[in-house]
Amino acid sequence: MSKFSQEIEVSGHLIDSLILTKIFDKIMDLQGEFQVQEINIGKRKKDQSYARLLVKGKNQKHLDEILQTIYREGAVSKVQKEITLKKSPKNYVMPDNFYSTTNNHTQVFHKGKWIQVENMMMDKCIVVKGNRAFCVPVRDVKKGDQIIVGEGGVKINPPERPREGSNVFEFMGSSSSSERPTQHIAKKVADDIYNTKKKDGKIVIVGGPAIVHTGASDAVSELIRSGYIDGVLAGNALAVHDIEYATIGTSLGMNVHDATLAYHGHRNHMDAINSVFKAGSIANMVKTKKLTKGIMYECVKNKVPFVLAGSIRDDGPLPDVITDVAQAQREYKKVLKDAKMVIMISTMLHSIATGNMLPANVKVIVVDINQPTVTKLMDRGTWQALGIVSDVGAFLPMVAQQIRKKK
Amino acid sequence: MSKFSQEIEVSGHLIDSLILTKIFDKIMDLQGEFQVQEINIGKRKKDQSYARLLVKGKNQKHLDEILQTIYREGAVSKVQKEITLKKSPKNYVMPDNFYSTTNNHTQVFHKGKWIQVENMMMDKCIVVKGNRAFCVPVRDVKKGDQIIVGEGGVKINPPERPREGSNVFEFMGSSSSSERPTQHIAKKVADDIYNTKKKDGKIVIVGGPAIVHTGASDAVSELIRSGYIDGVLAGNALAVHDIEYATIGTSLGMNVHDATLAYHGHRNHMDAINSVFKAGSIANMVKTKKLTKGIMYECVKNKVPFVLAGSIRDDGPLPDVITDVAQAQREYKKVLKDAKMVIMISTMLHSIATGNMLPANVKVIVVDINQPTVTKLMDRGTWQALGIVSDVGAFLPMVAQQIRKKK
Amino acid sequence: MSKFSQEIEVSGHLIDSLILTKIFDKIMDLQGEFQVQEINIGKRKKDQSYARLLVKGKNQKHLDEILQTIYREGAVSKVQKEITLKKSPKNYVMPDNFYSTTNNHTQVFHKGKWIQVENMMMDKCIVVKGNRAFCVPVRDVKKGDQIIVGEGGVKINPPERPREGSNVFEFMGSSSSSERPTQHIAKKVADDIYNTKKKDGKIVIVGGPAIVHTGASDAVSELIRSGYIDGVLAGNALAVHDIEYATIGTSLGMNVHDATLAYHGHRNHMDAINSVFKAGSIANMVKTKKLTKGIMYECVKNKVPFVLAGSIRDDGPLPDVITDVAQAQREYKKVLKDAKMVIMISTMLHSIATGNMLPANVKVIVVDINQPTVTKLMDRGTWQALGIVSDVGAFLPMVAQQIRKKK
Amino acid sequence: MSKFSQEIEVSGHLIDSLILTKIFDKIMDLQGEFQVQEINIGKRKKDQSYARLLVKGKNQKHLDEILQTIYREGAVSKVQKEITLKKSPKNYVMPDNFYSTTNNHTQVFHKGKWIQVENMMMDKCIVVKGNRAFCVPVRDVKKGDQIIVGEGGVKINPPERPREGSNVFEFMGSSSSSERPTQHIAKKVADDIYNTKKKDGKIVIVGGPAIVHTGASDAVSELIRSGYIDGVLAGNALAVHDIEYATIGTSLGMNVHDATLAYHGHRNHMDAINSVFKAGSIANMVKTKKLTKGIMYECVKNKVPFVLAGSIRDDGPLPDVITDVAQAQREYKKVLKDAKMVIMISTMLHSIATGNMLPANVKVIVVDINQPTVTKLMDRGTWQALGIVSDVGAFLPMVAQQIRKKK
Repeated sequence: MSKFSQEIEVSGHLIDSLILTKIFDKIMDLQGEFQVQEINIGKRKKDQSYARLLVKGKNQKHLDEILQTIYREGAVSKVQKEITLKKSPKNYVMPDNFYSTTNNHTQVFHKGKWIQVENMMMDKCIVVKGNRAFCVPVRDVKKGDQIIVGEGGVKINPPERPREGSNVFEFMGSSSSSERPTQHIAKKVADDIYNTKKKDGKIVIVGGPAIVHTGASDAVSELIRSGYIDGVLAGNALAVHDIEYATIGTSLGMNVHDATLAYHGHRNHMDAINSVFKAGSIANMVKTKKLTKGIMYECVKNKVPFVLAGSIRDDGPLPDVITDVAQAQREYKKVLKDAKMVIMISTMLHSIATGNMLPANVKVIVVDINQPTVTKLMDRGTWQALGIVSDVGAFLPMVAQQIRKKK
Repeated sequence: MSKFSQEIEVSGHLIDSLILTKIFDKIMDLQGEFQVQEINIGKRKKDQSYARLLVKGKNQKHLDEILQTIYREGAVSKVQKEITLKKSPKNYVMPDNFYSTTNNHTQVFHKGKWIQVENMMMDKCIVVKGNRAFCVPVRDVKKGDQIIVGEGGVKINPPERPREGSNVFEFMGSSSSSERPTQHIAKKVADDIYNTKKKDGKIVIVGGPAIVHTGASDAVSELIRSGYIDGVLAGNALAVHDIEYATIGTSLGMNVHDATLAYHGHRNHMDAINSVFKAGSIANMVKTKKLTKGIMYECVKNKVPFVLAGSIRDDGPLPDVITDVAQAQREYKKVLKDAKMVIMISTMLHSIATGNMLPANVKVIVVDINQPTVTKLMDRGTWQALGIVSDVGAFLPMVAQQIRKKK
Repeated sequence: MSKFSQEIEVSGHLIDSLILTKIFDKIMDLQGEFQVQEINIGKRKKDQSYARLLVKGKNQKHLDEILQTIYREGAVSKVQKEITLKKSPKNYVMPDNFYSTTNNHTQVFHKGKWIQVENMMMDKCIVVKGNRAFCVPVRDVKKGDQIIVGEGGVKINPPERPREGSNVFEFMGSSSSSERPTQHIAKKVADDIYNTKKKDGKIVIVGGPAIVHTGASDAVSELIRSGYIDGVLAGNALAVHDIEYATIGTSLGMNVHDATLAYHGHRNHMDAINSVFKAGSIANMVKTKKLTKGIMYECVKNKVPFVLAGSIRDDGPLPDVITDVAQAQREYKKVLKDAKMVIMISTMLHSIATGNMLPANVKVIVVDINQPTVTKLMDRGTWQALGIVSDVGAFLPMVAQQIRKKK
Repeated sequence: MSKFSQEIEVSGHLIDSLILTKIFDKIMDLQGEFQVQEINIGKRKKDQSYARLLVKGKNQKHLDEILQTIYREGAVSKVQKEITLKKSPKNYVMPDNFYSTTNNHTQVFHKGKWIQVENMMMDKCIVVKGNRAFCVPVRDVKKGDQIIVGEGGVKINPPERPREGSNVFEFMGSSSSSERPTQHIAKKVADDIYNTKKKDGKIVIVGGPAIVHTGASDAVSELIRSGYIDGVLAGNALAVHDIEYATIGTSLGMNVHDATLAYHGHRNHMDAINSVFKAGSIANMVKTKKLTKGIMYECVKNKVPFVLAGSIRDDGPLPDVITDVAQAQREYKKVLKDAKMVIMISTMLHSIATGNMLPANVKVIVVDINQPTVTKLMDRGTWQALGIVSDVGAFLPMVAQQIRKKK
């Protein structure tokens, strides 16, 4: 055995989930060497595979770099090490060389046991408290928190590609294209929503104002009213234009029912904002019957939690908007807890925000008419993500119609 | 009056159709000067307006440049000049300084009379034969043809912006956006197709293969079968994938009915091509019952003329494809003769080709999911053009459904 | 004179700035009638034009609708009315029928005098205090503020299209296209920056992280160091990646100098965030020599104010980020005060935010590789806005190089 | 061994080139079963791997489907079968069940020997003549040609992912993104052109008119003049606008040197067309000194072959344009013979056409400002393809400058 080498192991669906390919890639990208010591490919497609490799570097530092990189792809050192902990020197500050998380299921080897990291998210640190480990964002780090440094003792379970079944995630790869049979994609998405809900799976919508502008508001309202949606994450604009449409019939001043321009339409969204401030909140508008339909109305009526995150471009923003973004992130995270499926519609800002908070195993559907937006969101996703390049004003009504048929 | 000046006149809806604005712009762009000698704005909105300007240049050449530029915007010299004719020196060659056409209605002053130029298209020359004038493309120019040179004696009628009525062209400007209420745009387009047909207006579809890939094929077939469409202009790919879908059920190897990949789907379009070559032509496939549905089938059955223009990227191409593009242009032009409405769907190549052949007063609808494509096509269009950024796989079925309701 | 009619006047460059066209349009869109009572077109191109119209409605309400609409286009009632004021019933709440502003220069007729509205922005209300009038955003409205209601007594000066000169805004229309000679556009933008600065005009950059990812960071740093930039408006991501690049040499983990992936690059931006928290602020990092180059460094060194607005998708965010968006808007507005030119680079979020805060006469340049983004920003702009569809990683270095040549 | 099963073998870089992953995928997609009988992973990264699988189907037809599908991924039956040949029944017609090619290296087992298929292209058939096998497009099929049917006896060598080295294809994956350091990507592309040429590799450019519109014409001319380019494939528009720019200084009527609009610019491209027709050909224009610079000029002067393929949207088209697209395809193919590198610039039509004619091992670079275009081209490509989302007007001058530095 070379001086600067180490044995690592990896197991799972090594071939079809690309795990082994990625490990080979990383070693070669970093100019390392490897030998396959043992390989055991599952004889049948459901069997697990196993491989043991000897990884070599030019020197200890080089080897460590390679190892730390492939640990992130699911490789584990044969000789298991304990994690190393360091204290946070002050609030919001992590120790140097802190371990930065991925969005994959992660376990850490602490006091001789593997423990699961809770509240998994991407680009955070891991704080260990007693026998538990938590994924913690920067602004929640407290002075004295025990934070993992280095890569030792951390094990990742890369997502496995789902292989068989009946839902939309299994009939398409993760690619996005506008050249797909739209009506049938809509049907598959409807099936998936229906089946997820049947198993009591939590479904969250992340949406932008184009839902209202393109006339898909009624479809989304219907999904909420029918109990398919368990949370709505958005910004000020979706709520403003939803309320503009519900109270005045326009969206950005255009009459949604016939696409004509309304008289004085330019001020309608400001009027909608003012009416919410008058009532004090969206819930009060509903209570006082000033707001009697639409997405926000259905959320209030059906007790579906919604979070409106403020942004620098907001008009108003509405009293319900959380203007502090760090606080808004915490509220988003609460709604996303245990979600099984997240549908992201025409909003890059809120979709990326949500993506950062989701563990890799949550199903994500992205619908947008602009292909670069879908591609950008998919790039951050996993095999579970599905990109649909379509016109939400046409696509969502089709989905709603398909679900209606099921009842 | 300055030494280098000339009086010009212009009439029409000068203000609301921007005619006067454009003339002012051009003079200023070219660093010229002008004085408004007389202006008469229609008192009521249907009244014609009239203006007389004195245009000044720095020297005769400068003045001529300005004049020739504003003649293209509808200005006419007070002192009417005859057109100048020169003979083509050889086939395909125009005399120097030939007049290059716009797609606007054009009249020429010949032997003391204004005569209308026939067969109007953009970027062509004008050949005068006896008392008639024709718009002629380069490759149809014959040695000895009398061709107009210079700008003198040529008058253009810029398109007037339609002001009132009920169809889709009148409720939207020429802008395109994906943020419009899709279902209602679809309804307006359906109204417009229905109303145009009711007045016996000719409607032509220009389409690309995405019609089939996105599952909109049945909608287009239905429009043809129901008698709304009077011509189909396309390339090899639309026909190949339509026949692939009609005979095998796939498009580019994907099962259109459920969006799954077909076994050996990669060869299906080649199989479709081979089956047409075996039959000898698409019409023969229909006759021998090898082709029993789809867009091409409906064209043959309902005697709707179609032209398939070859392109360098064609597989095959099919025996029905006109592989010589100059010939294909002539056949396109025949189908377009007297068209009142042209619907361009998901094909930049054939849409630009068609746009170049259309007089400015033909209604044009462009549907594509990629906004730059729509913008590019609109830039060449006129006020009559309407750009819709949507997913054709969702949009066209909506249009077909709306039309069905009318019957 | 009809029962429901009113005389209005309008003056300015009615024809070439499209003012009259828009007024005609609006009347016709609203199914109104008009007669041109008098029209006086400037004889020479710099002369002002004047028109007097009789506008007619079907009834008083209809007439009022038409009038209020055309007042927004610059029309003024012959019979001048005083503005109407109503008190705000409580903080953040405007009286019903409040006047909602445009981004054009606006005057109000108060106590027999025209007064200019200060701090002009779009979609706000107007508060009158003594002899002054202020444009005020919703969240700055205080109970008891005197707020203008209705459209009476408000006069707008629509922007005039610049006609002659030498800068970039005058050689191109407001259209955007990727089919322009890039090197020469870059030269014109450089000329414009140089000339604006020579006249001591304030120039503000609004930028996104793609500046760093595409390798344009050095160019922007150079512009700041050389004194051309008077303010930088951005979000968390620009600062994070700028500091990642300045301290570690990567952007999103990719080595900017050779486009290779860095070892452990995924954590580099988190490391950059941690290093700022350790220092306490960006300014402290500069002071302690932890940060020695880049955009943020140059801002601190050259005392160029920067504002980082928080957003829901932020990692961190940095201690310098203003996490409350309402507060961030106020800080943005301060930096934008009296700006003569704003350059918006690859960030839709911050660019739209900034656009909403700018009066219509500020020059705006938008550079982005995605055409729909440019189009969307331009749609909210004016004739002064210039859209450039290009790759900022190539475009900005060209601009910087051109400016360097001038010195 | 099950009744409906067969042993297959596969060898190569099974893991890092994803070959095994794809075979597993296909079997599972088709609901088949498999057992890994033997697997031998190269111990070192350059070693070949080998695997033997037992594949099982539900019945013979199912098994055949699976086998025929995985043969396309490089699997080979343990029991080698001869190919089956059938005669073409008439010109242009292939026998039913003809083998439809991929663009990968392909061998066929004929008379007990593996022979290499020559002239490899995608979506064609294979004609066997004596001991040689040729890839033949539909329109070159002659009655009586011996054509391979079924998948038996055909072996494919899937492309191997290049692992180490110094050129651009090895530092990036096949993904495209606009968020890359542009200047360094340009440098890498320059290196790659330089190094390919040093080894006498043939380099072909496929280009659209945006090269001229965006001002990149001088850069491309320089590359040709300096001997880096061995062929230019384009359509009518590139030649027309190149000649317009070379003779009049404009492109689509815009002055390329300062981006202003030329007087009468709308007719300049028609004038350019007429001047070529007058000369008789582009070569004659060069000979008679009417054309003295530009891309077409450099091609003629430096005897670099160019092919201009006609399309339905052509103005003219020029006498040099091959108006028959089937003929144009043959001429393209000649120029592409033995090319080592193909650079596709801003033309989807000609790029897809070229892509269909290229074997999978040719390096392809795609540059376009529109991401969906790049994505679409990449989807048809291989690991060797590199997509660059940038502004060609800025990118190509950078590449030319980098190459200049090397001399």
